[in-house]
Amino acid sequence: MASGSSQSLKRRVQVERETGPVTQALTISIDAMGGDHGPAVVVPGVALALTRLQGRPVRFLLHGDAARIEAELARHPAVRPVVEIRHTDLVIAGDVKPAQALRRGKGSSLWNAVEAIRKGEADAALSAGNTGALMAISKLILRMAGDLDRPAIVASWPTLRGVTAVLDVGANIASDAAQLVEFAIMGEAFHRAVHGKPDARPTVGLLNVGSEDMKGHEEVREAHRLLREAGLDLDYRGFVEGDDISKGTVDVIVTDGFTGNVALKTAEGMARFFAAEMRAAFTGDLMSKLGALIASRALKAMKARLDPSSVNGGPLLGLKGVVVKSHGGADAAGFANAIKVAVDLAASDYATHTARNMQRLGDALRNLGPEASQSDSAMAERAS
Amino acid sequence: MASGSSQSLKRRVQVERETGPVTQALTISIDAMGGDHGPAVVVPGVALALTRLQGRPVRFLLHGDAARIEAELARHPAVRPVVEIRHTDLVIAGDVKPAQALRRGKGSSLWNAVEAIRKGEADAALSAGNTGALMAISKLILRMAGDLDRPAIVASWPTLRGVTAVLDVGANIASDAAQLVEFAIMGEAFHRAVHGKPDARPTVGLLNVGSEDMKGHEEVREAHRLLREAGLDLDYRGFVEGDDISKGTVDVIVTDGFTGNVALKTAEGMARFFAAEMRAAFTGDLMSKLGALIASRALKAMKARLDPSSVNGGPLLGLKGVVVKSHGGADAAGFANAIKVAVDLAASDYATHTARNMQRLGDALRNLGPEASQSDSAMAERAS
Repeated sequence: MASGSSQSLKRRVQVERETGPVTQALTISIDAMGGDHGPAVVVPGVALALTRLQGRPVRFLLHGDAARIEAELARHPAVRPVVEIRHTDLVIAGDVKPAQALRRGKGSSLWNAVEAIRKGEADAALSAGNTGALMAISKLILRMAGDLDRPAIVASWPTLRGVTAVLDVGANIASDAAQLVEFAIMGEAFHRAVHGKPDARPTVGLLNVGSEDMKGHEEVREAHRLLREAGLDLDYRGFVEGDDISKGTVDVIVTDGFTGNVALKTAEGMARFFAAEMRAAFTGDLMSKLGALIASRALKAMKARLDPSSVNGGPLLGLKGVVVKSHGGADAAGFANAIKVAVDLAASDYATHTARNMQRLGDALRNLGPEASQSDSAMAERAS
Repeated sequence: MASGSSQSLKRRVQVERETGPVTQALTISIDAMGGDHGPAVVVPGVALALTRLQGRPVRFLLHGDAARIEAELARHPAVRPVVEIRHTDLVIAGDVKPAQALRRGKGSSLWNAVEAIRKGEADAALSAGNTGALMAISKLILRMAGDLDRPAIVASWPTLRGVTAVLDVGANIASDAAQLVEFAIMGEAFHRAVHGKPDARPTVGLLNVGSEDMKGHEEVREAHRLLREAGLDLDYRGFVEGDDISKGTVDVIVTDGFTGNVALKTAEGMARFFAAEMRAAFTGDLMSKLGALIASRALKAMKARLDPSSVNGGPLLGLKGVVVKSHGGADAAGFANAIKVAVDLAASDYATHTARNMQRLGDALRNLGPEASQSDSAMAERAS
């Protein structure tokens, strides 16, 4: 027995040397009622994620209507062994305001999904439900890790060179310099955990309207200074512009939630515009139709690559815990991607890496002089 | 003689009744040395514009190297009768800083092009040269008409429903509520003059991160209030989001120069991304190549529609005079479009319409209470 145990330990050390630490089974806590389709997308999404995770040990808590979840599980028997249903009748509707969700959402599928993290039952929570409610409830239950008012939302943006993480895309309307640097720290750790390649450090850029040091308003210039001088463990490359997002110039692009939200939605609008133009171009005459028919495989491949569901799963960063938001309209493939994001984040050293850089930022803010903490009042000055 | 003159007057009144006021010949003052190609694009651009203007009486002052301009004119003899060359040896390079251009640019082709407006020799100025220099020199020579620090740049954005004017896209980094309303006033008058249809009032929206009254930061909420309550003569439709730009939800979209610049460049990046994806999709295999070949006409039509040169010509709004910036890399067709924009603006009631609304805004700012003029200090408050 002792010898067997010793052999098992040896084998474990061996495995660690080959593949890194052996991960314990992770538990992902899912709001099974969220999104446009509820369990009808969540359960097939879990099934798809299981095959993609290729044997990585993951369990799931599914919060919601037990009967509806069971009905879906009957169609996906492979999922049954790794799933635990947590029944609740209460569901937060998509149009409920965050304040209302806080007052009346306790015990709902969304609430319970997040609560499982606090109870130590789960390593990450995932919902395709009401974004405002998810943010408010997550903040209440888990609290913020840094100085942000609310969690930052990160978008995984398909680019010519891979995926660029853009944040914040909607939660924090105004951001001072220190908060922009917090986005950089969290975004870098996120990219490393979810989109990163082994032994490659993500590169980070700050969104501005030009590349010279004097461009932009006070907050971005001060954040630029902090990112260069605060001694953070990240590969900061300076200012980038809007067209650098799709180029993939850097792996992480930092901006305030107002600008980030406008940029993301502008890009979504452009994607729809291009799709419509392409449809129009290919239905113009018989030859075009024939061409489109022949090229349909290529067009399908292109559409798949541009499909937002292929990069679905936006974590709410800045919380003491991993919470991931899936698009409400995501299909099973998109939901599976969001599961993958939750698993990758929970399995990574995101929390420790982020905490270390946050510590350095705090030290720098104390040492680098008063400008760093005065950017709120500096907002009143018009940059020129 | 008297009778002939009287008949001519009658005829003129007749024409006015039929087609609106008879326009006097307009004079467009052009920096012939600006942009990547100088006279080699400017002169063919003028030739193309002449055919497009279909007999509308327009004259051109071409500022720059007389020998180079003459050489191009020799290839476009139809242009000769409507052109006057104003020789200068001095050219402002593309990389010169605005401050330097102000100090040393006097007498340059760009400077003289703008100066002609002040001298009363021209109705509009046009340059494909250094944007910063054009803004600084125009502001110095012509002065600002309203309260803006610097001219606003408007982008004519192709949409599913036509062209939407988006401003500011880069000049004013931070904008208070009153300035955002000035953008609305100028953008509406611009759209009416350049992209408008007879008897249709342009609709106006304010760019935000949601459509409810309480969304966004203090400046957009206060601008929203002013636009609804200031009694302006414009069709304000409320908040719009980033994806409304390409949708063409409204004809004019107002935002600060930082957000506008990021949105425009993000869209440019997306356009390049789509073009690259499309090339990749259609070179994947033999069938795709064949499909692309057959559909090439459709693809060409689509490319033409998305070509930025088809909507080239961004006026600098807010000056006492019409100044239009062409893309530095525009071809003759693009430059001809910029000429058309200058002609349409100069021939329109842009100035009087704008002045009337500016007057109303001024009255409203005095009457609507202190909030309206306090938005500078309100910038320091974090919107939540």
